[in-house]
Amino acid sequence: MTLAPRITMITLGVADIAASTAFYSKLGFKPSSASNDQVTFFHMKGTVLGLFGRDSLAADAGLEPTRPQSFEGVALAHNLSSREEVDAAFAFAVDSGARPVKKPEEVFWGGYSGYVADPDGHLWELAHNPFMELDADGHMQLPQ
Amino acid sequence: MTLAPRITMITLGVADIAASTAFYSKLGFKPSSASNDQVTFFHMKGTVLGLFGRDSLAADAGLEPTRPQSFEGVALAHNLSSREEVDAAFAFAVDSGARPVKKPEEVFWGGYSGYVADPDGHLWELAHNPFMELDADGHMQLPQ
Repeated sequence: MTLAPRITMITLGVADIAASTAFYSKLGFKPSSASNDQVTFFHMKGTVLGLFGRDSLAADAGLEPTRPQSFEGVALAHNLSSREEVDAAFAFAVDSGARPVKKPEEVFWGGYSGYVADPDGHLWELAHNPFMELDADGHMQLPQ
Repeated sequence: MTLAPRITMITLGVADIAASTAFYSKLGFKPSSASNDQVTFFHMKGTVLGLFGRDSLAADAGLEPTRPQSFEGVALAHNLSSREEVDAAFAFAVDSGARPVKKPEEVFWGGYSGYVADPDGHLWELAHNPFMELDADGHMQLPQ
């Protein structure tokens, strides 16, 4: 047996569903009508972005909720087509309420990237990777 | 301005790239030839799954690395088409080295799900949602 290569949803545990939904909506993501007071599902052309109460998410997994940390060991990346687009996205995200974590700069692997954090500290990298094309849906074209 | 609705990559910070690459490969995910000793990229039909050193990921964001916690406030979901498939995927993941976190059971929202953790504690939910169809690529068909 094997698992099919898919990530159906990424669920971020948040302190305030309404506030985080407003934040991501302002960024440009559109909530599905399947969302309710307890959970938000964003249309993302593939893997769904979900927001759920942090304590509820821990409880769903049968784990003790922990205190949010500055670094949780996970980052989501949103790639863009040029350095200029990265700079514009970074400024726009910060204007929309993201916390600036690292200003965009040239990075060791030959790309250009910065980091922002959402209202709960979840990390997003805003990146341009000159070695990987994005397809029409914005997905990275990885070599085989 | 808005950001396009996309998550290009989910990067999981890991202690041992080779061990985690072997774990996810055993699950059935295929590393891209763009991978190297420092980073693994898995083909996932959309959002890429990346593995990167936990300390390196923190450093890339300019943050202090933190100690991994039992619950990091994020979960990845892999949805399946029936309860039987969830049970089989759970058993297979545990056989492949995942840590069982919660055995699959009926959950409050009307679905059926369990949780496992990868070698670094990153949470995966294995779920059947009877209200959401999966398309040919395995992506959830969210209502508008």
